Amino acid sequence: MKESQMKFKTKKEVPQDESSLGISFLIQANFLEKLTSGVYNYLPLGFRVLKKIEKIVREEMEAIGGEEILMASLHPKKNWEATGRWNSFDALFKVHSRFDQWYALGPTHEEIVTPLAKNFIFSYKDLPLYLFQIQTKFRDEPRPKAGLLRTKEFIMKDLYSFHRTEEDLDAYYELVKEAYNRIFQKCGLLTLIAEASGGTFSPYSHEFQVETKTGEDLIYHCSRCGFCQNQEIAGDIEKCPKCQSPLEKLNCSEVGNIFKLKDKYSSALGLKFIDKDGKEKNVLMGCYGIGISRLVGTIAELNNDKNGMIWPEKAAPFSCHLLGFKTADAKKNAFIKKKTDELYQKMIDAGYEVLYDDREEVSFGEKLVDADLVGLPCRIIVSEKTISQDSFELKERKSGKIELIKIEAWERAFDKTS
Amino acid sequence: MKESQMKFKTKKEVPQDESSLGISFLIQANFLEKLTSGVYNYLPLGFRVLKKIEKIVREEMEAIGGEEILMASLHPKKNWEATGRWNSFDALFKVHSRFDQWYALGPTHEEIVTPLAKNFIFSYKDLPLYLFQIQTKFRDEPRPKAGLLRTKEFIMKDLYSFHRTEEDLDAYYELVKEAYNRIFQKCGLLTLIAEASGGTFSPYSHEFQVETKTGEDLIYHCSRCGFCQNQEIAGDIEKCPKCQSPLEKLNCSEVGNIFKLKDKYSSALGLKFIDKDGKEKNVLMGCYGIGISRLVGTIAELNNDKNGMIWPEKAAPFSCHLLGFKTADAKKNAFIKKKTDELYQKMIDAGYEVLYDDREEVSFGEKLVDADLVGLPCRIIVSEKTISQDSFELKERKSGKIELIKIEAWERAFDKTS
Repeated sequence: MKESQMKFKTKKEVPQDESSLGISFLIQANFLEKLTSGVYNYLPLGFRVLKKIEKIVREEMEAIGGEEILMASLHPKKNWEATGRWNSFDALFKVHSRFDQWYALGPTHEEIVTPLAKNFIFSYKDLPLYLFQIQTKFRDEPRPKAGLLRTKEFIMKDLYSFHRTEEDLDAYYELVKEAYNRIFQKCGLLTLIAEASGGTFSPYSHEFQVETKTGEDLIYHCSRCGFCQNQEIAGDIEKCPKCQSPLEKLNCSEVGNIFKLKDKYSSALGLKFIDKDGKEKNVLMGCYGIGISRLVGTIAELNNDKNGMIWPEKAAPFSCHLLGFKTADAKKNAFIKKKTDELYQKMIDAGYEVLYDDREEVSFGEKLVDADLVGLPCRIIVSEKTISQDSFELKERKSGKIELIKIEAWERAFDKTS
Repeated sequence: MKESQMKFKTKKEVPQDESSLGISFLIQANFLEKLTSGVYNYLPLGFRVLKKIEKIVREEMEAIGGEEILMASLHPKKNWEATGRWNSFDALFKVHSRFDQWYALGPTHEEIVTPLAKNFIFSYKDLPLYLFQIQTKFRDEPRPKAGLLRTKEFIMKDLYSFHRTEEDLDAYYELVKEAYNRIFQKCGLLTLIAEASGGTFSPYSHEFQVETKTGEDLIYHCSRCGFCQNQEIAGDIEKCPKCQSPLEKLNCSEVGNIFKLKDKYSSALGLKFIDKDGKEKNVLMGCYGIGISRLVGTIAELNNDKNGMIWPEKAAPFSCHLLGFKTADAKKNAFIKKKTDELYQKMIDAGYEVLYDDREEVSFGEKLVDADLVGLPCRIIVSEKTISQDSFELKERKSGKIELIKIEAWERAFDKTS
């Protein structure tokens, strides 16, 4: 993508009202903009990051048998009354139609997916079933916080599983844990799996927590025996209740959570099946969430330096940033531009995702500053000096390491870095 | 995809409360379910159709320079007050937060995209700019109608263009017309471009109309000179006002619309640029919508017979339906299954999207009925008879034409049909 075409712009000033440095960079580099407290718009670069993360998540969901669906956001009031959550779910946005009907604006989809599963589940032969969606959710949160970490509108992947037996639910729950570990690893995040209360959902749950300065959760972790609990249920403790070792107390941000719902929703909403013994039983359920937009925020929070973002390879909006070089000599510039254009076309033709700073009105110095701010995994410069050696300059954003790469061997260079 | 894995099910009865036969088939075949009046959930097959149509639309938007973004659904009240539409847009869902704030639930995004464009547009050098999104919209419609044609929640592609001059806006408007024609053609739809009133948007607009029995719009069309107007602006006429020929009066369904907004929103929301002459001017805008879910409904409405759907190639959830054959002889069945599995794997490995009815508990007769209902472009059967000739049977859903294809030449058969 050529920056001249996408009208690429960065802001001179760091926005002042964001408590997260990562989000400040994303706003400064036009990945996103804050529309109002707790509500964001994704601009072209930010949209690409969302799609990259969605792809990571979708692949792992499909790998554990998940089938993708898309459920509505306008939920009939009666579904939420059936589970008692119309009144108990504090952050529920309630929408009134001018035709005298009430809807809940979907903050989660147990009330919808449970009756939906009746289209597929009749007997034990129809179990297990795994349905997921990637979709916008709405929650009327009290204090939207730390950029994308707690917002009123956010993008979430929610997976729901349906089982015949508790053993089957337990086994799938462990499978999801592994898939989640792979997802967060691909996003470059180190996660702890903490025990937590089930909240409105169930008494059984685990949270995937990432240590961040701006995190809302306090997690007690024992590096000796692996004990890991949210302060919510651990209370205030100093020693590991399992092995008596001293505990780490970590500020964390939750990026995923998994719940065994058992028959809480199937009994409230009448999702039953005929078992092998001919008896009608409640379907057992699990639900598993990942905040996609929250992941963007967490990745941004943890991957930057004083100059800007440092994107992990798989979440980066483009894999490399090609900068058009400029000197005072117009004739030399034309020659360099021709060589740079050629390299750009070569990389595009080979399927690489290249952001090409071909802007004429911007100085080379500004291009360097912008490239650090945007933070793609690597930066490429073609200059008079590199051309004289049939090469280009490759800089790894993370390490700062600079190499000269022979143009004829350019593909090998990328196999190496990515 | 194996039907045993996706717990494929169809309903015995045609749902009674849908005025559209196409939508009845989609519900019967589990493409979607009606959650409540004017609100639908997309099940796995329906979700795949949505993605297919999104892909067609996205490619054409990118081909005319569109950059994809994602705007929020919760809109600050003040943006809608600035344009006067907080009170004048009848179908606006207004959402009240428990923290005493009001939001509009986005029915369209002029109020959001216009200030958003200020991140990119400063001078004439930053124009033109084209931004689009594919996103869920909300409108509190009076009488949700004809399945997916008028709903309270729907998926829309909205493109917004930003220009320096009227000439530039006019030229881009024509480019979008051509892109829209290509999109509808790929969806297998014949469209008329009708002049229509601008509604809340502007006095200038065109609608892309498809003739359907359940269509809400009345269109006057002159097959001699091409005159085409919505009854809304034409009034009740009998002869073509241009050439005096008799007119066709057609029931139509609108699948797309395009508007020249000019400076209506840029002046209300302060989107300006510095022109070549150094003067500050309002940016000129156009907006261009396609109802993605409405397209699904229109395609379904127009592509069926008494037995079920007949999907156009590019919108079909899978390109072919492979049916596992069954006879009374268990040993023969095992052999046929082995051969069918092999063909399935061969096609999957080659990248074909195959739906494989491998269900054990369902009779072959039911499989045939289900295949017609689902309506994929072609159906494949491997049986004892076809195996004896190293072949499989290929039936085109649309024409009903049946051919025996040599297994070794299977790829050529698909190059031919698709």
